[in-house]
Amino acid sequence: MSSGPTYKDAGVDIEAADRFVDGIGKAVRATHKGRVLPLHNAFAGLVRPDLKGMSSPLIAASCDGVGTKLLVAKAANNYRGLGQDLVAMNVNDLLPAGAKPLFFLDYIATGQLNKEILTIIVEGIAQACNDVNCALLGGETAEMPDVYRDGDFDLAGFAVGMVDESKIQRPNPLEPGDVVFALLSSGVHSNGFSLVRHVLGADTKILAKTPKELEGQTIAEALLAPTCLYVNEVLSLLENIQVKAAAHITGGGLLGRLRSMLGKGGSAVGIQLDPTAYRRPPIFNIIQSQGSINEASMANTFNMGLGYVLVVNAEEAQKLEGLNAHAHFQKVGHLTNSGKVDLGYAQE
Amino acid sequence: MSSGPTYKDAGVDIEAADRFVDGIGKAVRATHKGRVLPLHNAFAGLVRPDLKGMSSPLIAASCDGVGTKLLVAKAANNYRGLGQDLVAMNVNDLLPAGAKPLFFLDYIATGQLNKEILTIIVEGIAQACNDVNCALLGGETAEMPDVYRDGDFDLAGFAVGMVDESKIQRPNPLEPGDVVFALLSSGVHSNGFSLVRHVLGADTKILAKTPKELEGQTIAEALLAPTCLYVNEVLSLLENIQVKAAAHITGGGLLGRLRSMLGKGGSAVGIQLDPTAYRRPPIFNIIQSQGSINEASMANTFNMGLGYVLVVNAEEAQKLEGLNAHAHFQKVGHLTNSGKVDLGYAQE
Repeated sequence: MSSGPTYKDAGVDIEAADRFVDGIGKAVRATHKGRVLPLHNAFAGLVRPDLKGMSSPLIAASCDGVGTKLLVAKAANNYRGLGQDLVAMNVNDLLPAGAKPLFFLDYIATGQLNKEILTIIVEGIAQACNDVNCALLGGETAEMPDVYRDGDFDLAGFAVGMVDESKIQRPNPLEPGDVVFALLSSGVHSNGFSLVRHVLGADTKILAKTPKELEGQTIAEALLAPTCLYVNEVLSLLENIQVKAAAHITGGGLLGRLRSMLGKGGSAVGIQLDPTAYRRPPIFNIIQSQGSINEASMANTFNMGLGYVLVVNAEEAQKLEGLNAHAHFQKVGHLTNSGKVDLGYAQE
Repeated sequence: MSSGPTYKDAGVDIEAADRFVDGIGKAVRATHKGRVLPLHNAFAGLVRPDLKGMSSPLIAASCDGVGTKLLVAKAANNYRGLGQDLVAMNVNDLLPAGAKPLFFLDYIATGQLNKEILTIIVEGIAQACNDVNCALLGGETAEMPDVYRDGDFDLAGFAVGMVDESKIQRPNPLEPGDVVFALLSSGVHSNGFSLVRHVLGADTKILAKTPKELEGQTIAEALLAPTCLYVNEVLSLLENIQVKAAAHITGGGLLGRLRSMLGKGGSAVGIQLDPTAYRRPPIFNIIQSQGSINEASMANTFNMGLGYVLVVNAEEAQKLEGLNAHAHFQKVGHLTNSGKVDLGYAQE
């Protein structure tokens, strides 16, 4: 029985997969920084958490992908930002709980392994992990011919962080007069791409256009701007400022996430944003006018320029403005007693 | 601008997704058992680890999917076992490090949400998490029309566990005379399905056949037998027995995983298995004869009946046989000085 198919004939090349894993090893190991223990012969990773100063350590975890942004990356043949997108979508989600990212794992599924593209993506993941001091512990690269077409793939990520119980957000009632600060987004980030593609298509001709609002950028470049990493700014803020509520603006858009931040169940508190206090990235106007999309649909889908929003009381707001030397945080509004989220422009 | 597309027109139905998440909430919450903290308005979950008795707690994590087993489930329209497959592929990977599963997250990506099928899968995930006392902390359900065709989907999972540094496997040299025990597999588990499908196809006619070796089972039922959960048996063993090395038999098959367990770099230690000491599930013979696959390719792809293998010294082996009242662990071989993995039958 020396003939017959092997796993390779069936479309899965274990040796190529192993070579890929060896190739990215250096970038991955650079993120470990003494926290990751060597573990022979195991498909698991081991990390030493830093429990210093924690009386009741809690573990926070998040799971997210980059959605169909990867189809735009494919159409534009530009995969450089996807790694940061994946890391940012996950580690930013740990921040409203006050958790500090500890490690990250990725799941990459493809039809057939394209080593060059996957290396670009994993190097981007490793770089982003380095930027937020988070170990890239490992992951899974799955070759699944017949689920994914040639050149298609999917990316999912998983971030784990730690926070002491004394530091998590207390049920601190939001009150009219509280102040809303935000960190700006770099553009669409990684949400709403099915709508983007519905409106703009994903064909290379449209993606290569350079409308004057984009000041030299192509539509593809504007769309593919990597999701901002908010970890360092937010963690450094939390050392000094008591935050009442926060939201990473992702699925559901600015409106959905702000409503959810106010809480369910008939809260009388509302939010009034000041649209002149921040710049709406021009890519949103291009999407909106191209698709004749109303403001409510836009704001229920996209971040509209605000990537991370937080609420503090008036006293902490003053302190924050004093500390905020680099003006990362912009004061963009305040809480009202209207019970509504008002973005400051017509939403019809 | 009251017309124009919304996110739903673009193929993504956020409200249906929310209803799906509400529907599975009860099964998910049943796994929490007081360890999971409520976290308002966040896409992260918070868990309280049990650090009792740990002087140097370490966090272990794994990431895996179920591969193209899900295409066989689709062809057979039987999704009941996939949840357990996903959990088992991940939590079993924590065991060679000695780590006890704490929580699990799932990533489910689809073309279009099929609530009935996804509910079956997530209920299976929740049930398996319950079986191994692991909280199903959350996950991501991504609708990605254009990446996944109608009815297609992918599943990935992430498991996190804890282990005290004093309990992780010491660099304990393997020696000839050490004894090899195994927990049996239920069949193919979740590896090698691209080869299975290459050989058997995934068409419903072949899957519905009931060859006499399967004693009444269809080929589909044999292929879809859920991956065994080894957590309870292994953790209970580790309380009493010093294990030198262990391997969850997955990608690379029995041969690949045993070679890897012996270690790289010219170890003189080998393994001699006794093929009469355990039963090879009949589905493997059907795959092998149907595809004229040689033994080496079979053993480099499939678990061949052994799902979890561990090595102990002779003294611990005696203790294990005394403790092993329910005979979960089968003595299947011993270490030699041959430097080779010998399964006990011709591998040409």
